Amino acid sequence: MSNDSGGTLKDIGEFGLIARITSGDAATPGVLVGPGDDTALVDAPDGRVAVTCDLLVEGRHFRRDWSTPIDIGRKAAAASLADVAAMGGVATSLVVGFGAPGDLPAAWAVSLAAGIREEAALVGAVLVGGDVVEAPQVVISVTALGDLQGRAPVLRSGARDGDVVAIAGRFGWSGAGLALLSRGFKSPKVLVDAHRFPEPPYEQGPLAAIAGATSMIDISDGLIADARHVAEASGVHIEIDTSDWQIPGPMQDAAAAYNVDPREWMLTGGEDHALLATFSTPEVVPAGFTVIGRVVAGEPGVSVDGVEREAAGGHRHFA
Amino acid sequence: MSNDSGGTLKDIGEFGLIARITSGDAATPGVLVGPGDDTALVDAPDGRVAVTCDLLVEGRHFRRDWSTPIDIGRKAAAASLADVAAMGGVATSLVVGFGAPGDLPAAWAVSLAAGIREEAALVGAVLVGGDVVEAPQVVISVTALGDLQGRAPVLRSGARDGDVVAIAGRFGWSGAGLALLSRGFKSPKVLVDAHRFPEPPYEQGPLAAIAGATSMIDISDGLIADARHVAEASGVHIEIDTSDWQIPGPMQDAAAAYNVDPREWMLTGGEDHALLATFSTPEVVPAGFTVIGRVVAGEPGVSVDGVEREAAGGHRHFA
Repeated sequence: MSNDSGGTLKDIGEFGLIARITSGDAATPGVLVGPGDDTALVDAPDGRVAVTCDLLVEGRHFRRDWSTPIDIGRKAAAASLADVAAMGGVATSLVVGFGAPGDLPAAWAVSLAAGIREEAALVGAVLVGGDVVEAPQVVISVTALGDLQGRAPVLRSGARDGDVVAIAGRFGWSGAGLALLSRGFKSPKVLVDAHRFPEPPYEQGPLAAIAGATSMIDISDGLIADARHVAEASGVHIEIDTSDWQIPGPMQDAAAAYNVDPREWMLTGGEDHALLATFSTPEVVPAGFTVIGRVVAGEPGVSVDGVEREAAGGHRHFA
Repeated sequence: MSNDSGGTLKDIGEFGLIARITSGDAATPGVLVGPGDDTALVDAPDGRVAVTCDLLVEGRHFRRDWSTPIDIGRKAAAASLADVAAMGGVATSLVVGFGAPGDLPAAWAVSLAAGIREEAALVGAVLVGGDVVEAPQVVISVTALGDLQGRAPVLRSGARDGDVVAIAGRFGWSGAGLALLSRGFKSPKVLVDAHRFPEPPYEQGPLAAIAGATSMIDISDGLIADARHVAEASGVHIEIDTSDWQIPGPMQDAAAAYNVDPREWMLTGGEDHALLATFSTPEVVPAGFTVIGRVVAGEPGVSVDGVEREAAGGHRHFA
């Protein structure tokens, strides 16, 4: 990829931008046709393909004054890549729709693509195609394709009475970082960075599937909100117990400074893309997951430390 | 799908809209997991999957005062579905990212989804997932997955000296319709409708592949512009001969009224998604295609009736 990107999108045009983003692309195993034709063509080794799409809009999902284009690219890719992991799969390829104003610096768009590729490379996925159009603000759609490696998908609907609930990856960090940024602060840096781009535990998705996870979801809306999605899809009640939680140091510090309970960030903060899974017994929970609750029979819903929690707190569009 | 859609997106919320769009979905062959989980899961029968993405932005690709939401849904889906046909494939499924302001009537969004499904149904494809977010204007990303049915993809790069150039489907109609709408006219209706939603000759894509098409592209930017894409990818010159063209009646009428040459609409108008293909001999050109030119050795480029044509005329973003 070239970084020789003086000028704006208007200066270099749609095809100029595509040429800069795709220049230097090497042949990639599994990619039979890459960018530049009517469609890409990628291998689907087990005869099925997992597919998911996320749409990110400037001002709503990211701000150019808060995040670098690399960060935004990583964040945009992570949202879809984590969805594939949450099915127990491994993402293979991405296609990206990119809309932006004509006065956007071309270098910004090239860096965004670099961020998307960096994040994809964490799981071995590659950018295989896309679309570039003019738009009043930056809009990014990321579609990820994934391979389940012959396994059954791990659905939201498989949690059963008696299962344990476990989580892998950090959660609440992005929400805490957003709270800090919203108040004009830029530290603790580790929390602010967590909002700028997540670090989903991608590799834990297939491991959970292999270990026999009965259900799985990635936490994009918030722990309670996404646990509720599992509870409703499975027709069960999920009990979360925070009494054993070790609150990460930066969360403790920030929460003390703002006089809030850091558990609320961890229960309601979204966009970290931790993986929440259920397993039939504690013994099969794989390394990397921590048990935080259990599945019981009852009205679909989520309780925390014995208290029923309403849906509020999860991110909702149009709310 | 329910059409019980009073209120706005803000009234019913992200999940309310998704519920209305997906309610009543029946199980579909080839769709192993449909909407509602972290990803969809679809069959990829020959172990490969074609994938393409188009992004449409209100005010740039469509206007809500010119087109119904059904029309816009059809147009959005057609752009990606035609890309799959242009590889010689059959689209199997779509994932859609949808952004819109909170005050958009929910019924508008439900009708958009209906239009997307209507168009997809023309080729047997289904809507399997997506994302719904808030945005300052309507934004639609459509990603299509397709099946090449065991065949090699028909690339842009396979045209060879001596091939004939042939086209299937109407072309120039959408451009003529846009010219009419831009001047405030709504007739001839058939041209205006052609701009509101295209009618790509989807079935001709696989037929061309079976017949041995050496290259293929769908005309989204304009005949000359897209022929140039083939010429550049193949390293050949394409000669188009308009002397035999039968100008469709509505084009003749509209062109006469505006004192323009209708051939220019046909040469430079985009968004009809006609299929332009090359074949080694006239004898193998399948029914539905009309020969309009030939491939010759030489500098990559396009000439029309012996006159070299520059790139101008094709639609360009950021131009």
